[in-house]
Amino acid sequence: MKKFLSFILLFATATIPLFSFASSGSENVTQGVTHSDPIAPVLFGLIIILSAAKLGGELFEKINQPAVLGELVFGILIGNIVLFTGGAYSFDRLFQSESIDIMARLGVMILLFQVGLESNIKDMMKVGISSFLVAIIGVAAPMILGYFISSWIIPEAGFNTHLFIGAALTATSVGITARVLKDLNKLSIPDAKVILGAAVIDDVLGLIILSVVSGIVISGTVSASSVVYISATAIIFLFGSIILGLWISPKIGKWVSKMKVEGMKIVTAFLFLFLMSYIADLVGLATIVGAFAAGLVLDDVHFKNKREHHIEVLVKPLYCIFVPIFFVLMGIQVKLSVFLDPKIILIALGITIASIIGKQLCGIGVRCKQVSKLTVGIGMISRGEVGLIFAGVGKELGVINDSIFGAIIIMVILTTLVTPPLLKWSLARQEKKEAICLKALKERRHAI
Amino acid sequence: MKKFLSFILLFATATIPLFSFASSGSENVTQGVTHSDPIAPVLFGLIIILSAAKLGGELFEKINQPAVLGELVFGILIGNIVLFTGGAYSFDRLFQSESIDIMARLGVMILLFQVGLESNIKDMMKVGISSFLVAIIGVAAPMILGYFISSWIIPEAGFNTHLFIGAALTATSVGITARVLKDLNKLSIPDAKVILGAAVIDDVLGLIILSVVSGIVISGTVSASSVVYISATAIIFLFGSIILGLWISPKIGKWVSKMKVEGMKIVTAFLFLFLMSYIADLVGLATIVGAFAAGLVLDDVHFKNKREHHIEVLVKPLYCIFVPIFFVLMGIQVKLSVFLDPKIILIALGITIASIIGKQLCGIGVRCKQVSKLTVGIGMISRGEVGLIFAGVGKELGVINDSIFGAIIIMVILTTLVTPPLLKWSLARQEKKEAICLKALKERRHAI
Repeated sequence: MKKFLSFILLFATATIPLFSFASSGSENVTQGVTHSDPIAPVLFGLIIILSAAKLGGELFEKINQPAVLGELVFGILIGNIVLFTGGAYSFDRLFQSESIDIMARLGVMILLFQVGLESNIKDMMKVGISSFLVAIIGVAAPMILGYFISSWIIPEAGFNTHLFIGAALTATSVGITARVLKDLNKLSIPDAKVILGAAVIDDVLGLIILSVVSGIVISGTVSASSVVYISATAIIFLFGSIILGLWISPKIGKWVSKMKVEGMKIVTAFLFLFLMSYIADLVGLATIVGAFAAGLVLDDVHFKNKREHHIEVLVKPLYCIFVPIFFVLMGIQVKLSVFLDPKIILIALGITIASIIGKQLCGIGVRCKQVSKLTVGIGMISRGEVGLIFAGVGKELGVINDSIFGAIIIMVILTTLVTPPLLKWSLARQEKKEAICLKALKERRHAI
Repeated sequence: MKKFLSFILLFATATIPLFSFASSGSENVTQGVTHSDPIAPVLFGLIIILSAAKLGGELFEKINQPAVLGELVFGILIGNIVLFTGGAYSFDRLFQSESIDIMARLGVMILLFQVGLESNIKDMMKVGISSFLVAIIGVAAPMILGYFISSWIIPEAGFNTHLFIGAALTATSVGITARVLKDLNKLSIPDAKVILGAAVIDDVLGLIILSVVSGIVISGTVSASSVVYISATAIIFLFGSIILGLWISPKIGKWVSKMKVEGMKIVTAFLFLFLMSYIADLVGLATIVGAFAAGLVLDDVHFKNKREHHIEVLVKPLYCIFVPIFFVLMGIQVKLSVFLDPKIILIALGITIASIIGKQLCGIGVRCKQVSKLTVGIGMISRGEVGLIFAGVGKELGVINDSIFGAIIIMVILTTLVTPPLLKWSLARQEKKEAICLKALKERRHAI
């Protein structure tokens, strides 16, 4: 107990100066009454997780990297603390708590809900044919490449595992991509619009693939009818909820605006999120498919209640608390010892290369001349939440073991690390080319 | 399963029109894959709890009663649904989920954190001697009355139970009292200031009493030294955190303002909340004592970060989602069948009367002439969160059984129901008196 206490003090003082306050109180612990609130171990877990998340996020932002990478990396550090302390401490027991697991799941639901809230159905229709083709190619190519690389390096793992590894490479991370483009101040160029449109569409495709692939693993067979059945369920659910949602959400909004009781807007939004996720689970889809659909359908314009803040302002505090729990917990599950096996390093590098090359084929889908095929291909590289979700679901279903889980997290980290510098280079190259073109054009005019 | 589904549909359609959407999806459930996300039952529980909370809150606001009463009453309805369905359905299994219990505990922590945030240390010092005397008398009188009523009606229950029942009557509900005064548009009169100041002070006293009483129950003996020890711990913790907090919180604020990463303000606030609650638990106090201290110490002025919203705006969405879970869950735990025992009805009425009469002695503490003793006594009647916390902790410690738990909830509901009409009457009487006085004064002047 004393070691445990001194460790929390150590960790705490490293994170926030005030944490040293703990020392004055904790000395009394042996004298105090022994009844302890069941929430206490959960609080301890949350203190570690959220401190790690913000410390990691802040450090990575300082070196111009996305905060989410810091959350993953600090999660890996916590998860492997046993290596640094010579086996004396391990947090594993803490993170096997049911409540923290449920909070992480709530976190990923809120993340997809937020992605849905930020993607507007009308805008998605506008990006048109280019984004759609880019998304289709960008989903198919890495999946096929990943499948073959996996069956080449670890043939003994079996069909289901190859399938899951391939599927984990499909979806570009909307969050990370948008963040990188925003940091480069390039959100408004046509290339960025094609990339973001495609990223949202491949999220949807990724969620459908997750449903199909999980269905195959659970039923144990690949029958055309079950693939068609599950895809149809997913598509009907998504399109059904969009169509019904467009019709129903103004009605909910109107109903909520009439309410007198406080906090109706955020509670209604969350009730809708919970309900859609629950229905998705009932019809055999992942809960996050429902969460995404709920976000897509809800739109602030429907809430005419001017007393309360914008729906995205209301969701943000919940996002800030719960989403990092998901990413840190993903990192915690990576056991660095698995990389002692060179095969796992090989598979990590193999699937990272597959996911980078796979997205380079995306350029083929670009249908407008002023958009650079190279920039689009590079912009689509970063993987994130959907890859992590595949890894998590695969682990739960028993087709992804701890080693492959670690390899997928490394792929997510590497793809996200290479995107910003490559994108900067490609955009600079594009600008230079345009400048040369412009100069040549001017000179020709001058000559005439 | 089908019955279960049709029931959720029934409940859902009664709450939000869109819920009927569920019917189109849930028919496929038997055909779908059988893997289900572990969060699904939690989502189902949250859907029921939050719908009940908002439905109950809204109905009670419509009849000019505080929303929190609606949450309690609808919780009781859900908890006793088995009575209305002839034993066919019971939600009990759902609410024994560890995660929902932890969320309710998080809810009550957020509630006390918010009370702390709203009470400013400097303002508390200003209300001065009147509030302090009112609080002391208002805590002592109901506790003694409650103890004797309990040992008179149920002498067989034993010392610890009488003690807990008495202690559950001590604290006026700050939340409900502030709400009622605000609804009457009387927040600025001196009577209101004395009432609110005393309500905040008796919350603190209530929390200290909770620590002492729990300590007595756990140790099994009443020794003067342990009472002194626990009271001293609580007082040192509260005053220590206030003094340290006043010194440290500007430093945290400054540190947070320098951070680049998003959501730092709300995450830091919650880290502080979790840490203070965890330390309180470590030193043998209730987690909520720490939560209250955290709120008391944090102040928005310290966060110079202008990009983000005010701390209370950021906490509110979390408050709206989690706090109702606590109140609905409290209601759910009331089994109406316990009231078949006339003794329990007697004890419910007895402690209600004790809590009303006990607070009438508060008037003695009023030290300024323009404040009405009657109004102050009436304003202190309503009990709320602290009473419920006593009931919950007592149940956990095994000194409050289901019957007495039910009686305490009834006391909370009754005291809160009688406060608004009585307060309106007393304020009107006071105004009338003042008008007569004024008239007499004018007439006398006229005569001169």
